[in-house]
Amino acid sequence: MKNFDINEDPHRRFNPLINEWVLVSPHRAKRPWQGQNETISTEELPKYDPTCYLCPGNVRANGMHNPAYESSFVFENDFAAMKQDEIIFEEDIKHTFFKAKPEQGISRVVCFSPRHDLTLPEMDVEGIETIIKTWQREYTDLGNIKYINHVQIFENKGSVMGCSNPHPHGQIWAQSSLPTQVEKTHNSLKSYYDKNKRTLLEDYVQAELKAESRIVIENDHFVALVPFWAIWPYETMIVSKRAISKITDFTAEESTAFAKILKQLTTKYDNLFNTSFPYSSGIHQAPTDGLLHPEWHFHMHFYPPLLRSATVKKFMVGYEMLGESQRDITPEKSAEILRQQSEEHYKNLVK
Amino acid sequence: MKNFDINEDPHRRFNPLINEWVLVSPHRAKRPWQGQNETISTEELPKYDPTCYLCPGNVRANGMHNPAYESSFVFENDFAAMKQDEIIFEEDIKHTFFKAKPEQGISRVVCFSPRHDLTLPEMDVEGIETIIKTWQREYTDLGNIKYINHVQIFENKGSVMGCSNPHPHGQIWAQSSLPTQVEKTHNSLKSYYDKNKRTLLEDYVQAELKAESRIVIENDHFVALVPFWAIWPYETMIVSKRAISKITDFTAEESTAFAKILKQLTTKYDNLFNTSFPYSSGIHQAPTDGLLHPEWHFHMHFYPPLLRSATVKKFMVGYEMLGESQRDITPEKSAEILRQQSEEHYKNLVK
Ligand SMILES: O=P(O)(O)O[C@H]1O[C@H](CO)[C@@H](O)[C@H](O)[C@H]1O
Ligand SMILES: O=P(O)(O)O[C@H]1O[C@H](CO)[C@@H](O)[C@H](O)[C@H]1O
Repeated sequence: MKNFDINEDPHRRFNPLINEWVLVSPHRAKRPWQGQNETISTEELPKYDPTCYLCPGNVRANGMHNPAYESSFVFENDFAAMKQDEIIFEEDIKHTFFKAKPEQGISRVVCFSPRHDLTLPEMDVEGIETIIKTWQREYTDLGNIKYINHVQIFENKGSVMGCSNPHPHGQIWAQSSLPTQVEKTHNSLKSYYDKNKRTLLEDYVQAELKAESRIVIENDHFVALVPFWAIWPYETMIVSKRAISKITDFTAEESTAFAKILKQLTTKYDNLFNTSFPYSSGIHQAPTDGLLHPEWHFHMHFYPPLLRSATVKKFMVGYEMLGESQRDITPEKSAEILRQQSEEHYKNLVK
Repeated sequence: MKNFDINEDPHRRFNPLINEWVLVSPHRAKRPWQGQNETISTEELPKYDPTCYLCPGNVRANGMHNPAYESSFVFENDFAAMKQDEIIFEEDIKHTFFKAKPEQGISRVVCFSPRHDLTLPEMDVEGIETIIKTWQREYTDLGNIKYINHVQIFENKGSVMGCSNPHPHGQIWAQSSLPTQVEKTHNSLKSYYDKNKRTLLEDYVQAELKAESRIVIENDHFVALVPFWAIWPYETMIVSKRAISKITDFTAEESTAFAKILKQLTTKYDNLFNTSFPYSSGIHQAPTDGLLHPEWHFHMHFYPPLLRSATVKKFMVGYEMLGESQRDITPEKSAEILRQQSEEHYKNLVK
């Protein structure tokens, strides 16, 4: 019998944002790896690629020409997962097992800049601020559409994350329902706010700033941290210090601070394994159902798959799919490693 | 405005086993794929590989020798995610945000047979029955340990599922808590049973047999089907017709019927893309907490990643991680395609 040591002993941690547990196995990072290695492209990309359907002036799958855009550029996804058609539907309440509902939605693609080779960490702060402005405009415009109650802004970066075009871009899927994961977070935020009259993340950020060990970057308005309950090895979350419910509530100063922390965090990510670091990222913020959402607190998740190197990822498979998410390194250790990374991009460092 | 057509229009379906929705985009399978292709090994494996740490007589990472085993063989995982150590722990209830608990558990590896090259679909029914007997023994033995309340039997098959050794094997992770996903299912099964005095899956199987369209294979005791709420393109579930709460309740006839349906389903899987079909599979059954669990109903999930071919998988990334699982082909279409596959393994067919 020994006393519990959170840095050494297998344990479960609780995620109050979605009310789920994660299994943490601190000792397990030591096991040897004989499994699949990812292939990474070390190829230098050109500034403009004539075969890229996202570059300015080029033709997309549907035959349309991209304009000669100069900052960010948004268009409707040619292969959207949802459609805008209004559908007549009568719910069949007899069906316990076959419950289905049509879903209306819009998918858009957001090219970050005309440059085929310029990822977030390599852009300047001004360029990132332009993307933030684009996200704000899209959140407002899509949110104003009557049947759109949720706007999901996200990025799949890297081929290992299913991204099929290296031209830096994100996506927006806007729809009538709150998606499953967002609904879970919504319920947690709501019940915390109803009880405490403060947002859950307002209090959480303060608790993390006090604890220090999971903080990666802090500025006047935002904190980037490895959540206590992170599931991916280098998962992080950027949270606003102020209880801001949506991206359109940013002050000018907050926009700049957000652009800066985005650049710093993604630079550290790239420096970790000297590679263009793959991840899925996305913003969670207030629904666009026309109601006030004081319980909502703006945050951005980063879910990167890499574990040991640029080519060895964490597989969320068998036990994780059937049982519970499981991680092989503590969030505190991951935060420490990320903190140690330079904020100068490795490509700019003389070798 | 048009009437809802579940075969054509984007919609959400509800999964009553875990109370979550999935987004279905029937039209989306048509989009072109320019993203990452998986590498598949077409290499013929030897019956015995002197460098394999799972083959009979060989040495494992920790220096131990495998016996010259002749059917299935079980050993403790050398790099277990949990440990058996009893840990002294006092819960700190003040922590709203930093909730953690030590977790005790045991991980085992189950080699399916001495043969390095023999996957489930290629084994004979008798050989599979031996694996079932092994699962039954492990479920009983592990379940009898005082602190073990849940026994998760699963298999990661294929390098794309993080499997690091092609020697056919599964794993068992047994632990003190109900893992997150199992707890969700547990709660759903319990509330259905309390209300209806029948198990949820007993009634669901009958509804599916009546509907027919999602059935892949049926025998006297088991049904293999694509659940109405499946998230993976070719996800299936094997369910017992009788309300059996755990694998140790099988009659001799049921064991044989289960072995047969396992062989048939995995053969169809291999035939789909003429490849050794990757998946994570696992059994969900009653907890081993010493209580009776009339609400539990034995079932086995298969989560295969492939979508279009042996090399193009479905990426559960951005929207799926942040929003909701999304599928590009209807479960009915997938079931039809699986039904059409031969039950004779493609390797046995003269080309
Ligand atoms: O123990 P293995 O087979 O090496 O590991 C594999 O299965 C485990 C259980 O699903 C996962 O946690 C690992 O990420 C995966 O690589
Ligand atoms: O639309 P894309 O970028 O081609 O597709 C990618 O992102 C989508 C949203 O996360 C996923 O559903 C797809 O599986 C993935 O390949």
